[in-house]
Amino acid sequence: MAGEADLDRQIAFLTEACKLRSVERASKLADGSRQENSGEHSWHLALFALVLEGEAPEGVRIDRVIRMALIHDLVEIDAGDAPIFEAGLDQAAIEAAEQAAADRIFGMLPEAQAAELRALWEEFEAAETPDARFAKALDRFQPPVLNLANGGASWTPFNVDYARVAARLQPPMERGAPSLWRWIGPRIRAFFERQDS
Amino acid sequence: MAGEADLDRQIAFLTEACKLRSVERASKLADGSRQENSGEHSWHLALFALVLEGEAPEGVRIDRVIRMALIHDLVEIDAGDAPIFEAGLDQAAIEAAEQAAADRIFGMLPEAQAAELRALWEEFEAAETPDARFAKALDRFQPPVLNLANGGASWTPFNVDYARVAARLQPPMERGAPSLWRWIGPRIRAFFERQDS
Repeated sequence: MAGEADLDRQIAFLTEACKLRSVERASKLADGSRQENSGEHSWHLALFALVLEGEAPEGVRIDRVIRMALIHDLVEIDAGDAPIFEAGLDQAAIEAAEQAAADRIFGMLPEAQAAELRALWEEFEAAETPDARFAKALDRFQPPVLNLANGGASWTPFNVDYARVAARLQPPMERGAPSLWRWIGPRIRAFFERQDS
Repeated sequence: MAGEADLDRQIAFLTEACKLRSVERASKLADGSRQENSGEHSWHLALFALVLEGEAPEGVRIDRVIRMALIHDLVEIDAGDAPIFEAGLDQAAIEAAEQAAADRIFGMLPEAQAAELRALWEEFEAAETPDARFAKALDRFQPPVLNLANGGASWTPFNVDYARVAARLQPPMERGAPSLWRWIGPRIRAFFERQDS
């Protein structure tokens, strides 16, 4: 058991985390009714990890991937969501904002736990371990699954074509979850071919 | 790797699961701005499990609890959410609706996986194992944490008092996470005392 002071900090962190549900993403729900928020996206992503464990390359520990999914967007509470197809974003400024957000948000937790979850988030961001590569691949896979269901709701406003979508999705997906790219790549191509015809 | 047909079923399931974000609960976000939906609630609950692992009684396997949290409300896609303080609900009808929902929704998955996740959900519902008891206790703990932050937004419409809240929360919390009841019980009591004075 944590001491009362640690528990106070953990619950303050969990209450603060609730704000992630007020961060709006470019993607819409599968039914297209509204944009998704980063809190519910994190749930959906964790569920993708749970269900698609069989598509993970050898050596992936799926429960670590699920944990990454749960915390991967918490920094957006301060730093906001940077849409993947938005042009002209200042990546260095985004990274600096996310690091400052991680300091503040994970820093609300008791010290040892803050360090542990911060390290898990850094691992996700670096995308170098098999667990993080699979998590990153799923984070690229979930939005086009929604897009294919809702008629491209988060592609249309950015005026993208198949080449531009593939350029952002294919490399991380082939690194972390090649079978999922083989599944979705042709479906995304067919979607844009229908648009053009 | 799953075969292509299995992957089709898994992705159809994940797309269907998105509908959980359109199921509205009685609880409001910590900032009181709107009611929460069952998808983002499931994320928050899984994060509670991750962060509050130290409060779990001995023998609890937290990664199983996190998995339960991710799937515990999926049946609400068909059966809807039954608010805990709503009077006169037909519990037998709710259970029948949830069983039918579980048949349909988990049944979208490949057979072995459907059975596995259905069993995990049944375990959660039965609340007899240490993992399920901790998960159930967290599911009772997360809404009052939000309520204490937003001024009782999901207590006020139901006209409840401390005794009625404690009657619904204390037994499952003492069974599954006694230290969390010791933390929140006095705070809920103090909240209602402030209301009365």
